[in-house]
Amino acid sequence: MRVLVIGANGLTGQRIAKLLVDSAHDPVAMIRDGSQRATFDDLGVPTALGDLEYPIDHAVRGSDAVIFAAGSGSSTGKDKTVLVDQLGAIRSMVAAETEGVRRYLMLSSVGADIHSESRIAHYHRAKGAADEHLMTTDLDWTIVAPGGLREDPGTGTVEVSDNHHASGLTSRDNLAAALVACLDLPNTIGKRFSLLEGETPIEEALRSL
Amino acid sequence: MRVLVIGANGLTGQRIAKLLVDSAHDPVAMIRDGSQRATFDDLGVPTALGDLEYPIDHAVRGSDAVIFAAGSGSSTGKDKTVLVDQLGAIRSMVAAETEGVRRYLMLSSVGADIHSESRIAHYHRAKGAADEHLMTTDLDWTIVAPGGLREDPGTGTVEVSDNHHASGLTSRDNLAAALVACLDLPNTIGKRFSLLEGETPIEEALRSL
Repeated sequence: MRVLVIGANGLTGQRIAKLLVDSAHDPVAMIRDGSQRATFDDLGVPTALGDLEYPIDHAVRGSDAVIFAAGSGSSTGKDKTVLVDQLGAIRSMVAAETEGVRRYLMLSSVGADIHSESRIAHYHRAKGAADEHLMTTDLDWTIVAPGGLREDPGTGTVEVSDNHHASGLTSRDNLAAALVACLDLPNTIGKRFSLLEGETPIEEALRSL
Repeated sequence: MRVLVIGANGLTGQRIAKLLVDSAHDPVAMIRDGSQRATFDDLGVPTALGDLEYPIDHAVRGSDAVIFAAGSGSSTGKDKTVLVDQLGAIRSMVAAETEGVRRYLMLSSVGADIHSESRIAHYHRAKGAADEHLMTTDLDWTIVAPGGLREDPGTGTVEVSDNHHASGLTSRDNLAAALVACLDLPNTIGKRFSLLEGETPIEEALRSL
């Protein structure tokens, strides 16, 4: 499958792109500006320019799957959380439907909930609104909700559950590996699950969903 | 107040702009392209170019109030309903907050509900999502939900209620007059109400909220 990675330049997005290079799939990295291209040129990954605050149908066109790994990050204002994490995400779902893309993988978050009252409620509400929209579409969606993200090398083992308010940590390596693995696991379609550090090999954990 | 009318070129938006010309307020018409300018030049209403599928902060900047009267209409695809009625609306709320605009009037619809199962559920869900977002903001918001819109001359009398699933009709003249009247009625801040044809003079009905 031709897989568009939205948010490819991010810490998790780059890991996803690298894993896709060594997979049976063909990644395309959506990047916001040309200065981000060198990273993907070095990987041999084609890029498509697209900014989530603007229409991105042109970037989505021709893809078989989308992995949404973008995030406005914690250093921008709350406005960007709505504009990128919520509206940008929903916009990409609409583009996927319009362009006939079937498969859509969302990198969400434990605690994502439109009614969140958490310490980072603005983020959890935005992610929750995007997740809620995705679940109403006809796309073949999967929603992967990690805990607090850390940079430790992946262990290759995780724990999955349907507890959306689980608390824990998730290595970006394991998260990226799980998202890429979902592409080849049709049983993950229509599933929303938490992904935390654990003892079960990633593929085995995903097959249990 | 300087009042930005989003969707000014629409059937209700034009009525709002005309009423604002004769009010104590100063309207600015947000239009999507220059070809729509002549209508507002004739009225003596300044225009600001802005497309709801793109950032519109520049158009919102300097306003004291926003009236959101835009709609993708029934002749476009369901994708535009999400992109304009839902995402465009939420984008304008974020812009209002970022730009320090306090007052925000939303032209909604009876039946607007994120869980709608109505015959036009895609529209009611999009409008409901926008309304839900607005109610979580710190803006001085008012949500006016008309019934089926008709072109009959306004009677100047209406019925208001907090029944969001009321059914009935609303003339665009009465709707435009009610939205403009809300600008001078602080008691309407934080209120969401249905507006149908009725027997009560508009201002009296609004003061009863």
